[in-house]
Amino acid sequence: MKELILNLIDSGNYSEARKKLIEMNEVDIAQLLEELDKQKLLIIFRILPKEIAAGVFSYISNQLQEYIIASITDREIKNIIDELFLDDTIDFLEEMPSNIVKRVLQATDDETRKLINQFLKYPEDSAGSIMTIEYVDLKKEMTVKQALEHIKETGVDKETIDTCYVLNENRILEGVIPIRKLILSDETTVVKDIMDTDPVYVNTHDDQEKIASLFKKYDLISMPVVDNERRLVGIVTIDDVVDIIDQENTEDFQKMAAMHPSDEEYLKTSPWVLAKHRITWLVILMISAAFTGNIINKYNNILQSIVILTSFIPMLMDTGGNAGSQSSTLIIRGLALGEITTRDIFRVILKEVQVSFICGFVLAALNFIRIYFLEKINLLVTLTVCVTLFFTVMLAKIIGCVLPILAKMLKVDPAIMASPLLTTIVDATSLMIYFTFATWILHI
Amino acid sequence: MKELILNLIDSGNYSEARKKLIEMNEVDIAQLLEELDKQKLLIIFRILPKEIAAGVFSYISNQLQEYIIASITDREIKNIIDELFLDDTIDFLEEMPSNIVKRVLQATDDETRKLINQFLKYPEDSAGSIMTIEYVDLKKEMTVKQALEHIKETGVDKETIDTCYVLNENRILEGVIPIRKLILSDETTVVKDIMDTDPVYVNTHDDQEKIASLFKKYDLISMPVVDNERRLVGIVTIDDVVDIIDQENTEDFQKMAAMHPSDEEYLKTSPWVLAKHRITWLVILMISAAFTGNIINKYNNILQSIVILTSFIPMLMDTGGNAGSQSSTLIIRGLALGEITTRDIFRVILKEVQVSFICGFVLAALNFIRIYFLEKINLLVTLTVCVTLFFTVMLAKIIGCVLPILAKMLKVDPAIMASPLLTTIVDATSLMIYFTFATWILHI
Repeated sequence: MKELILNLIDSGNYSEARKKLIEMNEVDIAQLLEELDKQKLLIIFRILPKEIAAGVFSYISNQLQEYIIASITDREIKNIIDELFLDDTIDFLEEMPSNIVKRVLQATDDETRKLINQFLKYPEDSAGSIMTIEYVDLKKEMTVKQALEHIKETGVDKETIDTCYVLNENRILEGVIPIRKLILSDETTVVKDIMDTDPVYVNTHDDQEKIASLFKKYDLISMPVVDNERRLVGIVTIDDVVDIIDQENTEDFQKMAAMHPSDEEYLKTSPWVLAKHRITWLVILMISAAFTGNIINKYNNILQSIVILTSFIPMLMDTGGNAGSQSSTLIIRGLALGEITTRDIFRVILKEVQVSFICGFVLAALNFIRIYFLEKINLLVTLTVCVTLFFTVMLAKIIGCVLPILAKMLKVDPAIMASPLLTTIVDATSLMIYFTFATWILHI
Repeated sequence: MKELILNLIDSGNYSEARKKLIEMNEVDIAQLLEELDKQKLLIIFRILPKEIAAGVFSYISNQLQEYIIASITDREIKNIIDELFLDDTIDFLEEMPSNIVKRVLQATDDETRKLINQFLKYPEDSAGSIMTIEYVDLKKEMTVKQALEHIKETGVDKETIDTCYVLNENRILEGVIPIRKLILSDETTVVKDIMDTDPVYVNTHDDQEKIASLFKKYDLISMPVVDNERRLVGIVTIDDVVDIIDQENTEDFQKMAAMHPSDEEYLKTSPWVLAKHRITWLVILMISAAFTGNIINKYNNILQSIVILTSFIPMLMDTGGNAGSQSSTLIIRGLALGEITTRDIFRVILKEVQVSFICGFVLAALNFIRIYFLEKINLLVTLTVCVTLFFTVMLAKIIGCVLPILAKMLKVDPAIMASPLLTTIVDATSLMIYFTFATWILHI
């Protein structure tokens, strides 16, 4: 398909190319544009019918959006903005440099410009910044027949008509009604009698994380957004929520690997920006690892007198780190999904004590077999290593579950408390346990 | 609300309690049941109208489902199964022990039993196991008016009527049409002329991961599932896909923290099961860390002659591990979201070389300042540590980006290649680099 269209463009047969393009899904056209050189992409973009062009525009990358806006006329910009849903316009403008934003605003009419400016003021990641205003509103006194006629007259430009919103004369939200219920009800039924008067809704300033968790909890397809007076100002639709869920998850993955969260795509981010996101935590963790070095320094006489002890340091530190990050990951994920709350802290600790007892015992036993029987190392040294391993695993798992919950209590993101930071803490503690037991057991 | 209902139950005023319950959202009733003792929960469950009881049933935990099925009559079981959507029935039966499954199957009628048995045969996590059969089907010769009448007659039991499916006489999928388009079109229009003839669909055996990525790519609300002859057998709806996205993310988090993936909730899982999920990787990683110990052993003479070198080992190993897991996490996430493909391997390596050059340089420079100027340690030792750190960061980041891509090429889950396994590899390499440079620079 791609080659066919490119051939048609090359031979100047634009009308035929247009016909083929119209048959394609907008997402696939967007993907095609991403792969083309800039000249061809502009030709293809310009021969698209304007509704399709707007749809395609909302699916392409920020770089391409910027290039296209910079290359087309004000008239063409206005056409695209008129066809775009308001939430897609806001998404796009939030990522553009100010000269592009200015140009877009100048090209649009007064009313749209006012709306865009108002929406751009909502804090990023709030309900206000992701909602759309293209919804269907009904009055509670309407009959089903009147409601369906109203939808037919006004529904063309709405992002979703699956749910309709019932407002009073002050635009205060009185109820919602799924279109399904309207279609299945008798024509003379009054909206008031079949609407749901207790819908789930959010405020314009609520965070997108809250929105995502309400969508998941109540299996919603769309949700009303109201202002402080409960006036309906917009709706959030599930397609945006799916993106939010991925975005929040990506942020957690990045924080857990000691990086500044960013929602830019990897291949489209410059090495400088990538390095900037990573370097702070690397420096912090590097400096804190120096403390671990100091502990080794302090006990150097022990290592000097029983040289073999040094070779177990990596195993003890790594196993402690792994055991701890298993626990912290489960707890961080449980907190993020709402399966664990801060009130569960004692249940969690109790469970981790049990789990770490089992894990620590098995690991210590296997180590004993390997070190004493296979490597035939002195019994007291073997005991020192195995006892240290057992307590390191216990401690690592307990620290690993407590830290994320404490973070949550202190309103810090639990994901920050993940493996790298935990490993640094566990490293130091495991060495101290090691040298303490070495002093006791080996009488050094 | 909760206490009000409990008081009404206690005073035997069931009809009033029922009235209050009907006003509540099914999700909230389910949450209420989770908090009650078993006797009260059964009373409340029994006074619910049967459609609501079925909805509530689909939202409660497996433990409660099992308890309820074991406590109610066959007649009541049949009522619930009749009201449940088929995909919820399958979800529930997949988690139940065989005696409960048997009891449920005996209580249902022949036709439902046959359907359930057929669905239970689809592989877990395939399109077949998550689809529902409650969809609206149309014929392409119908007018919009006939189509809407058909929906009105048959739509009550359908999970979603937002999209209708156009089938020929052999039930082969010919197109889809959103209900929105039907409502907004003229009554005399024929379905054939407004349907989308090229819908996105999946096969019953396709994996749920593929389904989730198609939903995300095309912003879908529902998607048809067909058999090998392109006959429509069911549809998947977005509410199930949202759960899949969370489930897949949780699995990735768990694999990346070196655990066997599991979709059981943390607090509801026994310590034995939790320990079982964690111990295998802990043992594997512990044993491989023994190799790192062997490297230290081998170069013990170096550590003996310049004792201070030992104290930098934790810092070098930790920084290498952190630098590597930053890269691997970004790559694993990029692969999971489809932002990076295996074909990008050389672009990724090039980028990581640049990023690691910047990070390595900054870290080495800071270290030089700390070790040489602040801790006033010998210049050659300082140089050994800094040069090692630079090359360790370079190598860790390159290994960290290559391993997940190689895994993907070999059809292994890239998440397996995450920090713990990577750390083990980087530990060994960083020590070898360290001792090599120590031999060269310090002439030991």
